[in-house]
Amino acid sequence: MGVNYGELAVKLAREYRGKVSVYPRVPVRGVKDFAIWYTPGVAEVSRRIFRDPDLSFDLTGRWNTIAIVTDGTRVLGLGDFGPEAAMAVMEGKALLFNYLGGVDAVPLPVSARRLDDLVRLVEWLRPAFGGVNLEDIESPKCFFLLDELRKRLDIPVWHDDQQGTAGVTLSALINALKLTGRKLRGSTIAFIGAGAANIATLRLLVSAGADPKDFVVVDSKGILHPARPDMEKLKEAHPWKYWIAHNTNRDGRTGGIKEAIEGADVLIAASKPQPGLIKKEWIRSMADDPIVFALANPDPEIWPWDAKEAGARIVATGRSDFPNQVNNSLVFPSVFRGALDARSRKITDSMIIAAAEELARYAEERGLSEDYIVPRMTDWEAYPRVAAAVAVKAWEEGVARVRLTWEEEYENAKEIISSRRKALEMFVEAGLVKISPLLEEVPAE
Amino acid sequence: MGVNYGELAVKLAREYRGKVSVYPRVPVRGVKDFAIWYTPGVAEVSRRIFRDPDLSFDLTGRWNTIAIVTDGTRVLGLGDFGPEAAMAVMEGKALLFNYLGGVDAVPLPVSARRLDDLVRLVEWLRPAFGGVNLEDIESPKCFFLLDELRKRLDIPVWHDDQQGTAGVTLSALINALKLTGRKLRGSTIAFIGAGAANIATLRLLVSAGADPKDFVVVDSKGILHPARPDMEKLKEAHPWKYWIAHNTNRDGRTGGIKEAIEGADVLIAASKPQPGLIKKEWIRSMADDPIVFALANPDPEIWPWDAKEAGARIVATGRSDFPNQVNNSLVFPSVFRGALDARSRKITDSMIIAAAEELARYAEERGLSEDYIVPRMTDWEAYPRVAAAVAVKAWEEGVARVRLTWEEEYENAKEIISSRRKALEMFVEAGLVKISPLLEEVPAE
Repeated sequence: MGVNYGELAVKLAREYRGKVSVYPRVPVRGVKDFAIWYTPGVAEVSRRIFRDPDLSFDLTGRWNTIAIVTDGTRVLGLGDFGPEAAMAVMEGKALLFNYLGGVDAVPLPVSARRLDDLVRLVEWLRPAFGGVNLEDIESPKCFFLLDELRKRLDIPVWHDDQQGTAGVTLSALINALKLTGRKLRGSTIAFIGAGAANIATLRLLVSAGADPKDFVVVDSKGILHPARPDMEKLKEAHPWKYWIAHNTNRDGRTGGIKEAIEGADVLIAASKPQPGLIKKEWIRSMADDPIVFALANPDPEIWPWDAKEAGARIVATGRSDFPNQVNNSLVFPSVFRGALDARSRKITDSMIIAAAEELARYAEERGLSEDYIVPRMTDWEAYPRVAAAVAVKAWEEGVARVRLTWEEEYENAKEIISSRRKALEMFVEAGLVKISPLLEEVPAE
Repeated sequence: MGVNYGELAVKLAREYRGKVSVYPRVPVRGVKDFAIWYTPGVAEVSRRIFRDPDLSFDLTGRWNTIAIVTDGTRVLGLGDFGPEAAMAVMEGKALLFNYLGGVDAVPLPVSARRLDDLVRLVEWLRPAFGGVNLEDIESPKCFFLLDELRKRLDIPVWHDDQQGTAGVTLSALINALKLTGRKLRGSTIAFIGAGAANIATLRLLVSAGADPKDFVVVDSKGILHPARPDMEKLKEAHPWKYWIAHNTNRDGRTGGIKEAIEGADVLIAASKPQPGLIKKEWIRSMADDPIVFALANPDPEIWPWDAKEAGARIVATGRSDFPNQVNNSLVFPSVFRGALDARSRKITDSMIIAAAEELARYAEERGLSEDYIVPRMTDWEAYPRVAAAVAVKAWEEGVARVRLTWEEEYENAKEIISSRRKALEMFVEAGLVKISPLLEEVPAE
């Protein structure tokens, strides 16, 4: 209680000076071993890959290495802090990839900012990586960028603020709908906020079978509808909002959050960390047994107790200290694990849906309740299961280079992920990674 | 004996699947620790760096992280194998950086090929790194690229095939000259080959005080001189060769290797791996007590026994199985160690010369002989000494952000480098890095 995480994080950042390091995967018994790992031996490895570039997945670390690319224009959703500042966050993300997915992730904050430049840059980096995770890039640039790179590259490209959030939100929604006796198709959903997270969630829900006509979407200017004065401008500048305005909102609602929520089965807010943005009386105006996802970080758009008091049957937030944390970390490490192991060329929407369904199934098997619709970060079994579901789906979708059965990938993912966690335990035991006295101030679990 | 390093390297590459991995630097006692390493805590770290971007050297891993960038156009000097194939080599280089310099090096083979594109790409990557090592990029593009990036970036940029080779060659030359009673200024030098290595060596020798008029330089078309028919073309396409043609070769020699070598005190060949390219009788035509560096890899331009038989007093090659290995690995890890620790904005020629002098001094202290003019890779003391010399010189040159005394950086470098070597020993002991039975085929030391 009362821990100032910000201050502590700064002190510990100064002490540890980075959250990840590069270490050998191979033994060096003496300098002669460099005749194998370097010249002259390595020349033959290069020749083989030269003849067949896909061999780089067998003969180098490419199979397990991804780039975490950001331009720093929307660091943690807070703002344009620039790439140097973004590094601190990208390193944390690399740590999560390592710890939860066994993935070698390289933090790459870059000073390119124009869309074209970012496309070019990521294309140029492609040969070094088995996949690319985009992060903390402002909207709508992030939509153009992701769509363009997914077209151009033959390795998975993922924007975690889009697909990661969409995947875990879908997963939580599947179980919330189940608990309240609803189906996705036919449920009315009010989206509050039209940034990367909500637009991606909306798109994924449509891929998963929802009818967009059942949606009403609110951005900072109110409900999106075809008669809004900014429509012509949006057509070019933000075609996704333009599409939404023309394909959602069956009843042609206008107005703001209040009008969007009225009568809805589900509310998905991913807008501003401002408790009270969504009022209790608006929750009362929703359908019976309403589902409320208030996902802004660090603070939700309505406090869970207020939503509950106003009649919400199920409430989820982005916070780890409330039940039902809708947390990307349940998705991105294992989606990449599965996609990398299948050497997938893409991460398709179907693969993300498969991940969401597997996560939902896992929670269901453990016993659904209003306070448990989505696994917790410590549900370790969930990660290899998601990886397996993703790898299998990649093959079905025709984007995998390697065919893996569910069981094969489950065992494989479990082994890789747990070996990384064990390695860190070993680092601590051996004193290679020290536990700072400052850490004692905060509980570990 | 008789080890086929190429075949072995391929088999082991398939077994180990990469030579480096990303591992945590920080403990994760449980998922709650991500509140420090990731959100919400990390937001404050980002805010601090946003206000002062240089803080990224204190609060993230940038202080110790470099990129190894290649376009794969000249992999190991063998040819244009492309970036995927280059990865195998870049990983090996990252391992060397780690093992000998304690540096976190990220292998980044890229598909950009045009000079402008490479300049742009490296500039965009700048915020993520404390330095950049360019590698295996074709000539003359590599000269344009290095010169341009050294101008533009405020972090060290280094092309190892240029400065690394030049640095260690200068170091060996200092001692060879000493043993034969010569001075750098006034010694005549024949350069055979005008690629990245020899042109960089030539430029560094000039920075170190040599008179270029004492040089004669031969490229694939013969001796460079102002009347050569390709001069006008070279002016634009290869200004360095143009400069050489106009500033070396006091006597206006023409012809080929034979004519260049005649009467020279020193021969520095860095051309083609073709023993016999330089004939014994040409060595006989050199000055008394001649110095012969035949540096092509994997095979020198003349075998050492042939050079010796023809009267060479001192012979050096690029090979680890002959005496006097002129080996970049003695230079690049510790030059970066020193430059990173001083948070240098540049690696100036004076810093490289300081590194070369320190290496030469180290060998001298151990006892110079015709078979020991330059340290061996196992001379562990040499690395922190070079780092110290570089850090001190960086401050003198006005390019360091941090002032370190020789002793401070010596202790610091020694600690970082040895801790990385110890970490790898620990990995092996704990079974995190396994020793393949295939490795038993080759001796370790």
